[in-house]
Amino acid sequence: MSPAKSERTRARILDAAASLFAAKSFDGVSMRAIAREAGVDPALIHHYFGSKDDLFDEVLSRGASPDSLIERVTSFPRHEWGEELVRAALGLMESPAGPALRAVMRSGIASHPDLLRRFVGDRILRLLVGHLDGPPEQRAKRAVLVGSQFVGIFVAKYLVRMEPMASMPREEVVQLVGPTIQRYLTGELPSAAVDDGGAQ
Amino acid sequence: MSPAKSERTRARILDAAASLFAAKSFDGVSMRAIAREAGVDPALIHHYFGSKDDLFDEVLSRGASPDSLIERVTSFPRHEWGEELVRAALGLMESPAGPALRAVMRSGIASHPDLLRRFVGDRILRLLVGHLDGPPEQRAKRAVLVGSQFVGIFVAKYLVRMEPMASMPREEVVQLVGPTIQRYLTGELPSAAVDDGGAQ
Repeated sequence: MSPAKSERTRARILDAAASLFAAKSFDGVSMRAIAREAGVDPALIHHYFGSKDDLFDEVLSRGASPDSLIERVTSFPRHEWGEELVRAALGLMESPAGPALRAVMRSGIASHPDLLRRFVGDRILRLLVGHLDGPPEQRAKRAVLVGSQFVGIFVAKYLVRMEPMASMPREEVVQLVGPTIQRYLTGELPSAAVDDGGAQ
Repeated sequence: MSPAKSERTRARILDAAASLFAAKSFDGVSMRAIAREAGVDPALIHHYFGSKDDLFDEVLSRGASPDSLIERVTSFPRHEWGEELVRAALGLMESPAGPALRAVMRSGIASHPDLLRRFVGDRILRLLVGHLDGPPEQRAKRAVLVGSQFVGIFVAKYLVRMEPMASMPREEVVQLVGPTIQRYLTGELPSAAVDDGGAQ
């Protein structure tokens, strides 16, 4: 297969996977169904992407591109990171990648915590940790606090659709939640809490 | 049936339901299975509790008792509510009611958003709203922000078990997240965001 053709086949598989993952849960989608939707042989999916987990990861990364999101946010002055991160994260959830992201959150929370942990922890929070100041344990705590506030907003706004969060305009969420994220990222944290490395 | 016997039967049904809901998902538990576990006729469950939704609600309220939790927290000075609410909420998740609460969160997020919305929104946040100051729309926003941060902490700490949140001691979470909750409850919120009632 020529490189261009191979690239088109990859893209077709990713499109098919994204639309199926978005419509159903992670468990409800078989590799065979993705192959059928993409019009390719199932073996080709394994050849390009490995396991279903890996394919899912690829679908999310293509839409979400955590690297470019974090790069963009950290190009702003440090005291604006909180608001910019909320703005970027909500933008992502409301982008074409949104449905697949909601699907991973839903499946991840319900039955694939390992998948969600890997995607959020290894792909997003680890990138963020690299931009923060302080000792590693403190930076890891900051990142997981940021992650927890985002998970909560996503669940309330997009999955459970709890009002008045569900219909709150993006810029209002930015203003309300931005300062929380900013404090987690760069604010003073209680010294006892950040110094003992999480010891009981 | 005598009042005492009827009370014991109710308790036996609630115990059976709690242990089954905790072990499986909401969907995985039938009224028939609860009846079998409790050693009663399925019709008796309908008689006492109505639908499975109602029974689930009752199981959670018995364990969680949102009323007493909110009463206890609001008996503290207002500037301590943030920390006290985190302390009480984590205490509840680590109490015997914890497994059933995790089950409702898991099922609710995955497939019963209405159930979760009703339980969190109508049972917990509405109580909280009654204790806050300001116009109703502003109080509703404060409450849903509080709810979103708690959902995020619960998902990260208990459902997905994301480190370093999963093994973080309760008092450390209280110190780190308390100020966020305090700001959402009683802090200055951006005036544009709270004055326009959520209009675009």
